[in-house]
This record gives sequence, structure tokens and C-alpha cells, in this order.
Amino acid sequence: MIDLRSDTVTRPSIAMREAMAGADVGDDVLDGDPTLAALQARVADLLGVEAALWTPTGCMANTVALMHHLTRGDRFLAPAGAHVLEAELGTAAWLAGGLPMPLEHDGGPGRPTPAAVARAAGAAGPYFGLRTSLLCLENTHNGAGGAVTGVDEHRALVAAARDAGLAVHLDGARIWHAAAALEVAPHELTAGVDTVSVCLSKGLGAPMGSVVAGSAAFVDRAWRLRKMLGGGIRQGGVMGAAGLVALGQARDLPADHARAARLAAGLRALGWPATTPDTNIVLVPTADPAALVAGLGAAGVRAVPFGPGVRFVTHRDVDDDDITHVLDRVAGIAAP
Amino acid sequence: MIDLRSDTVTRPSIAMREAMAGADVGDDVLDGDPTLAALQARVADLLGVEAALWTPTGCMANTVALMHHLTRGDRFLAPAGAHVLEAELGTAAWLAGGLPMPLEHDGGPGRPTPAAVARAAGAAGPYFGLRTSLLCLENTHNGAGGAVTGVDEHRALVAAARDAGLAVHLDGARIWHAAAALEVAPHELTAGVDTVSVCLSKGLGAPMGSVVAGSAAFVDRAWRLRKMLGGGIRQGGVMGAAGLVALGQARDLPADHARAARLAAGLRALGWPATTPDTNIVLVPTADPAALVAGLGAAGVRAVPFGPGVRFVTHRDVDDDDITHVLDRVAGIAAP
Amino acid sequence: MIDLRSDTVTRPSIAMREAMAGADVGDDVLDGDPTLAALQARVADLLGVEAALWTPTGCMANTVALMHHLTRGDRFLAPAGAHVLEAELGTAAWLAGGLPMPLEHDGGPGRPTPAAVARAAGAAGPYFGLRTSLLCLENTHNGAGGAVTGVDEHRALVAAARDAGLAVHLDGARIWHAAAALEVAPHELTAGVDTVSVCLSKGLGAPMGSVVAGSAAFVDRAWRLRKMLGGGIRQGGVMGAAGLVALGQARDLPADHARAARLAAGLRALGWPATTPDTNIVLVPTADPAALVAGLGAAGVRAVPFGPGVRFVTHRDVDDDDITHVLDRVAGIAAP
Amino acid sequence: MIDLRSDTVTRPSIAMREAMAGADVGDDVLDGDPTLAALQARVADLLGVEAALWTPTGCMANTVALMHHLTRGDRFLAPAGAHVLEAELGTAAWLAGGLPMPLEHDGGPGRPTPAAVARAAGAAGPYFGLRTSLLCLENTHNGAGGAVTGVDEHRALVAAARDAGLAVHLDGARIWHAAAALEVAPHELTAGVDTVSVCLSKGLGAPMGSVVAGSAAFVDRAWRLRKMLGGGIRQGGVMGAAGLVALGQARDLPADHARAARLAAGLRALGWPATTPDTNIVLVPTADPAALVAGLGAAGVRAVPFGPGVRFVTHRDVDDDDITHVLDRVAGIAAP
Repeated sequence: MIDLRSDTVTRPSIAMREAMAGADVGDDVLDGDPTLAALQARVADLLGVEAALWTPTGCMANTVALMHHLTRGDRFLAPAGAHVLEAELGTAAWLAGGLPMPLEHDGGPGRPTPAAVARAAGAAGPYFGLRTSLLCLENTHNGAGGAVTGVDEHRALVAAARDAGLAVHLDGARIWHAAAALEVAPHELTAGVDTVSVCLSKGLGAPMGSVVAGSAAFVDRAWRLRKMLGGGIRQGGVMGAAGLVALGQARDLPADHARAARLAAGLRALGWPATTPDTNIVLVPTADPAALVAGLGAAGVRAVPFGPGVRFVTHRDVDDDDITHVLDRVAGIAAP
Repeated sequence: MIDLRSDTVTRPSIAMREAMAGADVGDDVLDGDPTLAALQARVADLLGVEAALWTPTGCMANTVALMHHLTRGDRFLAPAGAHVLEAELGTAAWLAGGLPMPLEHDGGPGRPTPAAVARAAGAAGPYFGLRTSLLCLENTHNGAGGAVTGVDEHRALVAAARDAGLAVHLDGARIWHAAAALEVAPHELTAGVDTVSVCLSKGLGAPMGSVVAGSAAFVDRAWRLRKMLGGGIRQGGVMGAAGLVALGQARDLPADHARAARLAAGLRALGWPATTPDTNIVLVPTADPAALVAGLGAAGVRAVPFGPGVRFVTHRDVDDDDITHVLDRVAGIAAP
Repeated sequence: MIDLRSDTVTRPSIAMREAMAGADVGDDVLDGDPTLAALQARVADLLGVEAALWTPTGCMANTVALMHHLTRGDRFLAPAGAHVLEAELGTAAWLAGGLPMPLEHDGGPGRPTPAAVARAAGAAGPYFGLRTSLLCLENTHNGAGGAVTGVDEHRALVAAARDAGLAVHLDGARIWHAAAALEVAPHELTAGVDTVSVCLSKGLGAPMGSVVAGSAAFVDRAWRLRKMLGGGIRQGGVMGAAGLVALGQARDLPADHARAARLAAGLRALGWPATTPDTNIVLVPTADPAALVAGLGAAGVRAVPFGPGVRFVTHRDVDDDDITHVLDRVAGIAAP
Repeated sequence: MIDLRSDTVTRPSIAMREAMAGADVGDDVLDGDPTLAALQARVADLLGVEAALWTPTGCMANTVALMHHLTRGDRFLAPAGAHVLEAELGTAAWLAGGLPMPLEHDGGPGRPTPAAVARAAGAAGPYFGLRTSLLCLENTHNGAGGAVTGVDEHRALVAAARDAGLAVHLDGARIWHAAAALEVAPHELTAGVDTVSVCLSKGLGAPMGSVVAGSAAFVDRAWRLRKMLGGGIRQGGVMGAAGLVALGQARDLPADHARAARLAAGLRALGWPATTPDTNIVLVPTADPAALVAGLGAAGVRAVPFGPGVRFVTHRDVDDDDITHVLDRVAGIAAP
């Protein structure tokens, strides 16, 4: 079986396992864990912000940020299909308290335009009482097939949000992929945001863990919010060590992207309507995703139903030969 | 000043004031108020459902229904611009717990198609965990200018929801207007719904009050939810009596609709881009709603900014002469 | 049947009905209702605070205040058996977000001491993260049989709260009764509080309605919170007029208190373990409240089970003859 | 420095580090992690329940259980000072939705009697609407100094809860300590409960992780609740392996208890008012905990302020010599 369901399926590398086994640890609830502290400092530096906080999952990282930004009576904007809208069980609404307003992708896959932000921010007036207070971006945009928002476009979206008086959170679970695709430093893609979350597991290969980052004042408050959600762990250095190794593994993302491009081209050569990936995600639209996933499974390829289609994700546990095998196996299946 | 801001501005009629003064009352928290009970029974009968419960406002009526239907991890569908999305301070999300998914008006103003319901209901799969559980309709649709959904279209939307396993709530704050416009009984427009809210204040002229209705089991639970929200009143019969008079005043709605049609035609004759109203609401799109409202006010006509335009609402405290005066006064203002 | 279940069962007087029928009204959501505004100003004046806001019920008044004061991670103190703890369906916890800490009545029925406040406020330290932020008082204390907190004692409790950095909310649903019993103006009993709620229905005889009051800034925010809960009504002047009459009816409370005293003395003369009432509530402890209530009902007297006992409440629809009848009827029942 | 602040400060042993490094892993969100599955099965077996679910922290384990049991309008009982009341930032109230009612320790430190449960469960009647639905026990009771509830007493408390129609959750973070002290199997102490949480970090020495357990149906639902809170991790086997080693380390708890007993006896010999520990926690009441903690720190002993006193906790990173050193160092400090 070649598993292309998600880049979350990667197993820790030997180097990562050794780092975990040898990690220097403390009690992170009581007085801090040195390795987790080192990881957090490193991520803050990479993202160009003051401070950062590890969380067990990306869902918790986003929830902490949204709880910080939103309160009852607030509305927030996010691109249609965003992870915070589709894949976090509604916590943005019932836990963080915000009423979401999905934005159309009028600037391309996964990308609303600054004009759309301005329009949506202005729609709810004082008569109704709802306050639009936050723009939540996602780069790369998972639901739109790992679509990348460029540096200038990111800055223009942030500027539109600022003009409308909105705070900005960036769900940067795969910011590493966007940075690799654009060949820029990650901090270029966080310019102007208030808070950002990044994932150490997807693509980078840590067993678990995300980081939420922003100002020192935000992180002080986030510490408390994380504890509320049950994310205040003890000897976190074990995962801190894994995270530090994972950050180094970002260097391998271009190879994942190349494999996704090769996979997409191969599928299209077979007559499949595959997207052209910006990063490591290939989508194939189909009327019956479950049937296609079943057919793929029978042929030894694992993928997941994903909206009105099927998603393939390349990652560090899939190599060039695996892509060759996938294309060989897929060749026997009728194009959807 | 002629006040066309909303049909909520109506003052109680003499008959209604007398009914309130003479109302038979009890303690509705302890063992029921006889007049409120009579009102609730009458509304349940008009709507073709088992039971009904008075609430101080339409916001509370909808919130009670949504708290009944939704829980954390649920998603619900509603036409874009619905009152529960725009004008209830996000309670559907943070209080009832549902993540809203706005539906485009692909079937006409205020009206998503059954196909759109089916598509949106199917979009969130088990992988992500979010469950789409409710369709929330609105008839007439306030944000779309009092747009009416017809009987067959209503039935088709309910059927689409049922096919997708969704419950159905109808925000029928102005169901009386829809029934009047279609010349059908209100219960024709509630066919198949689980719960429905109606307003006694907007258009019908009660000083306050809405009713939420459905099965007897729902109303049992709604009683408790209303108490949680602070809506368990004592000598409710005073408002029950007003509500009974208000129901009778529904007979006057066709006249309001005729006045709205005359207002819209008159505005268009003056070059204003007014909508053609289905009921008692006329919208005039404009780039600067605040300026237009100010100009109208200076001329002695009150209206409200409403999305990207201005809203005029006819109601029982506005008569034919008032419409003549409005058109006279508006004639001196440049068409927006 | 003589109904002593609650002072909420009173029916509006003729004067009150006439005031409601003739009330000058406006749209209180849009631009204010003149009669409601007059009521609110009058209550603010009586309570010695800047501003006030009408709500449909006392539950909503308290919930609005607690939502203002509390947030997730906060703890609040209230006397054991307080209305916000026992009779508001837990909204203080799940809606306002506070974790309640009941205080023992170490200063007498319904009255914790300032020392108890200081102790409880200090108990949760920074290690655990919970912040004690509010003291919620109740005067008179319903669960403790309408027990009155005196002026000096009130001031000492407020001072203890201030010393511990706590805000203070006073549930003054029956503050009128406390003021009448102490022969002081109501504002003597609100000294130093941040917010206070009072009831126009219990005892004073309005069909419905409470008022929550405090600083102008609080009331601005409370307006929004009330709308969230579904308490933003339209022609509120009908109830505003009832409320203004109700305030005047506070003059009759001493007679209710005298009747309660007479009832309690009569019961004790019959061997019943009745409390000596401070105000209009008499409690009779018993192991089987349901049986006693049933026995009373068979004899033509209505009372309610209340904790480990039965509660009798005198009110403006019960006169001296009624008390005589109650004692006559009770004479035939074995003392509990 | 000898660190007696908490048994959470323990560092993973060599064996545990090797197990983590060599763990067999999967994606626990997608299709399960084999090592985490093995850990969960082992814990379910030890606790005598059908199924179990790993969580990153004990706070999350308790929150998941309380979210399962409680809803708005519910009240729950817990011994005064319970971890869910004092140390989880109020999540039981604002997130799980329950209004807490603390129970006095009338059966001994940390232990309410069955009669107290029955009384408290019966106190809120139908008139007020609040439903008492859950008893939350804690064994050992941290706030009461690691106090143990015995097998018969546990069964009597569960029976009292059942008689009152309550569900039962057991916060068994240190159930291992109670079982060791009583020399019984852990499942003897979970008899009759609906859900139970246990900790792999406190005392047992895992870097992080707790387990919440109960029926298979509960665990199905808990999986979803954990994901909502941000606890759905990926290659959980790393922590699963640590947890399996930690379970084996329970064998060392009697030595920790002996050291706590020796510490307490030594302190008392020095004139300190130390408690006699049931397990591994020693409390020393004092009027100024912060000063005592500071004095201890200056002498090379770390402890924490804890209610109106100071807490010392023995654990696997403290040996017999360390206790000797602590007593030597403490000898120079005036008895509090």
C-alpha cells in the first residue's frame, strides 16, 4: 500500500527518534521545559514574531488564536473551505464565539481578493450589532489543493483587513510548503499578521505538535487558553526535540512538491482531471469520491474523499519509486 | 416624519390596548397564563403544528429553536443574509453551537434551490467530523427585500433537507406576509418543518412578542430553553391579549403590500432603482446608504441603511396618504 | 384557594392596567421607548446609579450582569442557595462562564461574613489559574427565607470584596422588601456595587419585568448583551408604564411583611416550626415537603416545596382576611 | 535543589526513552496508532471497563468526560477542593455546562458521605429546573493531601449516586496511588462508575498523557470530543510507548508512599504540623504559604503553596537520601 491520504501519516525518522530519546526536559506547566522553549524560540524567529507556544495539535493552535481574537457578537472572514470552517468541528463558532462568513475564492483557488475582504467586512452594520473583527487566512489552502498565496497578495489581504479594522490570523499549517514553493523565508508570508499557527507534523514529520505564535502578550494569554483546552503538558521536551528536527526537514519539501507535480502530470496523461499542484496536494474531482477511493485502495493506493473529489498528498515517506508505482497501479483504473 | 424604517415601529391599536387592559392573566412560570395559552393554541392551529410557545422577541424564538436542533460539531445551512446569520449577534454559532454555511440565492432573491441544499449538506464528510444537521429557511426573506418562497418551492426545499437527513427550522417572522401575498393559509407554508417561529410585532402590530412552534415534545423542551435565556415571564396574558388582536390584524397586510408596490413604482418613476416588492419591503441599492438615509430624513422620510442600499417598509401605521407624501418628498432628492 | 406560592402570582391592579393601556410608546430597539426610558431613569435614581435597563425577567437581568462581569477562567462567590446558583438553570456557569463558589451563611441566614468573602477570594492562587473576580450578593435572600442584609453589613461585604479585588453584583430582586424592612431608601443598600438587578414583578406587582443597573458604560454594554439573549423588545412602554405603577406600589410592602409575621406567629402557635420572617417569606422545614404541600392544597392553601421545607409568600393579592383563613385551614393539618 | 512541588516533575527513565524511540506508530486520527491502541486496551483492562482513550493531559481527560455527562441546566456534585473545581480553569462550568455544587468532606479528608450525596442531589427540585445529574469523585483527593477513599466507601458513594439517578465520573489521576495504598487492583476502585480518568504522568513518570475510560459507546463519543478540544494527535505511539512503561512503574509507588510517611514523621518531629499522608502527598498548614515556600527554596527544597498551606509530593525522582537531605535542610527553618 502506498499511502497518499495525508502528509500526517509520516513516521518519525531515526534522527528524530534519537532526538526524542535524548531530549533535555522540564515541567512545562510549572517552570518551563528547556527543549520546548528552544523550539518555541526557533519558530518565533522563523516566523518573524515575538513569541510562540507549542500545542499538541493544529486544531488547538487555531482554536487558541480564535479564542484570543473573537468574542460573542463577532463575525470573522475566512476563505470558503478553510480548515477552521470545515475540519475543526465548529470550534471557531461555539468555542471561540465567532460567526463565520466564508469568502469566495475570487482571486484564484483558496484566495479571496482584498476587495472581497473589504466588501464582506463592511456588510454588517451597527444596526444589526454583529461586529466583523477578524480575517482568518490559510496558506497553503488545504481545501483548494495546497494553493499558495504569494507575498504581495498576502500583504494586500492584510492591508485590506487593516483598513477594515480587522485583526488577522494566519492558519499556516503548511506555511513551510508555501515558503518552499515561493522560495522565500516563512516570515515573508506572515508579514503584518497578529497571530499565526504552523504545523510540525504535516509534511515536516513530527509525531505530533503545532505552534501558535504572535506578540509576547498574545502568547502570555495563549498559555492560559491552552491550559483551558487541556494542552498544558509536562515533559514537553520530548516533542520539542522532535519539532526541532522537523523544522530542519523542511529542506525536503521541494522534493515532495516535485513528486506531486509528477503525479499530477502522470494522472492527466492517463486522462484524469487532476489539478496542477502549487505544492504537495493533488485533487481529482469526481462525482463519486467513495467509489474512486475504493478502486484506488484495491489497486494498492490510499487516498481520501475530499469535497467533490479525491485528494492525494505527497510527503516524506513517499519517494520517487512510490510515485512510479502509483502511476502504474492507477493506469488500470478508468479515469473518473 | 413618515417612518418607513421597519414594521416594528407600529404602535398598539385602541382595540389592542383595551384587550391588554382587560386580559385574564395567571403566572406562566408556575402554572400557565390562560390568555397566553389561548394565543399559543391559536398560533399552533394557524401553523398546523401541535404546540407553540410565546417568547418576548423573535431573536429568542429563533435561538430557542436553534438550541433545540444544534449541538457542538453541527453545521447548519441558511440562505445568505438570513436574519439568524446577520441580525442575531451570532447566537446561532456561540449559543446554539452550530457552524453556519450560507447558501447562495440561486433560486431567486432569498431562495436557494433544493439542489444547493443537497450539495451543501453533502459537502462535509465523516473525515472532518462536522455534521450538517439543519436547514434554516426564512419566509419572507427580510434581507432579500421581503422575498416570498412559494408553497411548492417550500415543499421541495423541505424534501431536499429530508433526503439529506436534515431537520428544518423556518424563521417565519413574516410568514403572515408570505401567506397574504400567496393567498394561502399560513400552514401551507410550514408543511414538513420541525419548528417555526413567527412574529406578532412586525406587521401585525403587537408591542412585543413572537411564537416558536412545533411538536409537543419540542415545546416541552423549548419551555426550559426559554427559561434559560430569561424569557419565562409571569402575567403573560397582557401580551397574550395583544397577540390575539395582532393575529386578527393580519387581514390588513394586503393593503401594506399594495402600498409597498405603489411606493416602489413611484420611486422607479422618479428614476430610483427600487426593487419590485413581493410583500411590504422595498430596497433601493446605493453606494452610499448613509447619505441617502440622511437626505431622506431631511425631507421627512425615515428609512434604514440595509446592506448595500436602503430599506423602506410599509406597515399598519402608514396609510395611502403617507405614501403620497413620501413620493412627493422624495421627488426633491436626486435618484441614487 | 389562597395562593401563597410566590409574590410573582399577583395580578396587575386596575391602575396598572389603565397605565398600560394609555402608555406612550416607541421602538426601543431602534431609538428608544419614552415610557421605558422614564422607568429606567426612575429606577437608576432610586438605586443611586447612573443608568438602568429593563429586561423581561430577573433571570435575564442577572445573566446580563454576570455576562458583563465574568469570563472563562473566572470564579465567583455567592451565598449558598442564591437564586443565581439554584434557580437560573446554571446560566452563571455555562453562559456567563463563571465557576461558582457557594459561601456558607456564617453571618446569619443568607449572609456570609466579610471574613468568609476574604477567605474564599484568596483560596485560588495563580498556580491553578482560576481567578476569583466577583462577589454576587442577594438581598433579600430568597432561599434563606427573605433574609435581610443590613446597611452596615452590606457595606462591610462590599469592602471585603474590594479588598480582594472583586467586582460586586447585587441580586436585588426584592431590594424593595429589604429597604422597607430596614426603613431605608433602596440606594442605601446598593452602596458600592458595580451592578444591581431589581424585580418589578415580585411583590411590586408588574406583569413582568426586571431592571439591571449600574454605570452608563455598563448599561451600554448590557443593551447589547440583552439583545443577544433575546430581550430587545419594541413598544416596551406598555411594560414601562406597568413598572412605573409598580414602583409606587412598594409603599404597600410593610403590610405584606406584617402579614407574613402574623402568619409565622400563627403557625408557630399551632406548633409548626415556622421561621420568623424579616420580610414576606415564611419557611417551614419538613422532611417531606411534597406531602405537606399536598395537604395544604387539599385544605385550600397553596405553597411550594422549597429546599428541605415549604415556602409561604405574602403579596399584594393576599389581605388580612386571607391570612386568617390560611391559619384556620392549617389548623386542621398535623404540624410537620 | 530537591523538587517536591509535584509528581509531575519526573523525567522519563532510560527504559521509557528507549521505548519511545522504538515505538511502532500509525496515524491515530486516520486509522489508529498500534501502540496507543495497546496502551488504551491495557488501561481499560486494568480499570475493568470496556474501552479507553489517550489524551494529552488529565485536564482534557476530565473535560471530555464532563462534556459527555453534562449539559446546560445540569448540576454536578464534587468534593470541595476537587481538581475539576479548583485546577481546571472552570471548564466543568463554561465548557461542559454544569453548575458545580461542592460537597463537604463530612466522611473524612476528601471524602463526602453517601448521605451528603443524597442530600445534595435532592436539593434542587423541578420548580427551579436545575437537574442534578452527576457525581464526580476524586481518588486520591489531591486537595485533601492525597487522601484515599476505600473500596467499600467508594461503592457506597456510587450506590448513593445511583439511588439519586446520578451518573458517576471518577477523577482517578492518582488511582494508582490509592490502589497501592489499599493493596487492591485499580478496578476495585472503579466499580460502578460510568467514566474514569487516570494519569500516566503524575507518579507513573510518563512525559505527558492521561487516559479517559468507560463503555465503548462513551469512548466513541469521547474520540469526537477530544478532537474538538484539539487532542487528536497523529503518531501517538511515541507517547503510547511511554505510557506502557509508566504503567509498569506503578510498582514503585509504595516506596514513594513510604518516603512521604517518613517525610511527614520527620517534619512533625521538628514541630511542623504536617499531615499524616495516605499516599505521596504531605500538607503543612500555614498562615503564609508564600513565605514558607520562599524559606524552603532558600534551603534547597522546592514545594508549592497549596490552599492555606504548603504541599510536598514524593515521586520517582526522589529517593531515600533526598528525604534525609530535605529533613536536614528543613531543620534550620522555624516550624510554621
